[in-house]
Amino acid sequence: MEKVKIKLRSAVKSDSKAILKLILELAEFEKLKPPDINGRKRLIKDAFSKNPPFKVILAEINSEIVGYSFYFFTYSSFVAKRTLYLEDIFISERCRSKGIGKLFFKELKKIAKKNKCGRMELVVLDWNVDAIKFYDKLGAIHLNEWKTYRLTI
Amino acid sequence: MEKVKIKLRSAVKSDSKAILKLILELAEFEKLKPPDINGRKRLIKDAFSKNPPFKVILAEINSEIVGYSFYFFTYSSFVAKRTLYLEDIFISERCRSKGIGKLFFKELKKIAKKNKCGRMELVVLDWNVDAIKFYDKLGAIHLNEWKTYRLTI
Repeated sequence: MEKVKIKLRSAVKSDSKAILKLILELAEFEKLKPPDINGRKRLIKDAFSKNPPFKVILAEINSEIVGYSFYFFTYSSFVAKRTLYLEDIFISERCRSKGIGKLFFKELKKIAKKNKCGRMELVVLDWNVDAIKFYDKLGAIHLNEWKTYRLTI
Repeated sequence: MEKVKIKLRSAVKSDSKAILKLILELAEFEKLKPPDINGRKRLIKDAFSKNPPFKVILAEINSEIVGYSFYFFTYSSFVAKRTLYLEDIFISERCRSKGIGKLFFKELKKIAKKNKCGRMELVVLDWNVDAIKFYDKLGAIHLNEWKTYRLTI
């Protein structure tokens, strides 16, 4: 069996093209409208701004970028601690089942602990059973009684 | 009919006691465990820290604090804009149906626009039908296909 070398690292501006390629791949996978040209420009500008509204971790296999996760911190008033919120996690389809997802979560938990978070949270599409199984295995709990509402501004 | 004077304003440190009183009232209403003593201390410390992880708006009737909302900004990668996330909104039970909730949303929408947000989001308990009706009326959409997962750190 070929030994695969997986590496996680923070994204830098020169990764922009690779990140956008993976975002389009995620949008296709999730059957969602990807960010338009202006959205992509804003996303990259925001990601590498002075006070970025989210942080980007990349996964590399033999120096090729094959996955990413976007996260930021929210806050729970009742726990009175920050929450690490995982906005996106995506691994290119051809690179699944290699343990990259587990590595991402190990790293994200480390970051959450370092930042004294009480929780990690994420949302997943109800038909994405593979992802749901993965989150179940990690010990994540589905918050069935909480309903999310959205207002477009 | 008695004319009621409602005022919204940002919270200051001397409001701490009134805020905590309302949080306990919310916990009772939601049948949730309120923050413990240490949690309450952390919450107030965080609320009035130099870079607070959330912001607090209060509602007053004739100078008495009767409601609050906690919010912070998250980010949508696909919209490539910030989201105003409403962590808590609560109006003391005896002061409902006076238009305070509407006023809060008017103010929050103003803040969201000022901060170039694409969306506002919140979660609500599935049995809280009065709140759900209120959000429906405001034009909020229930994101039924997205499931929220939580990991305790």
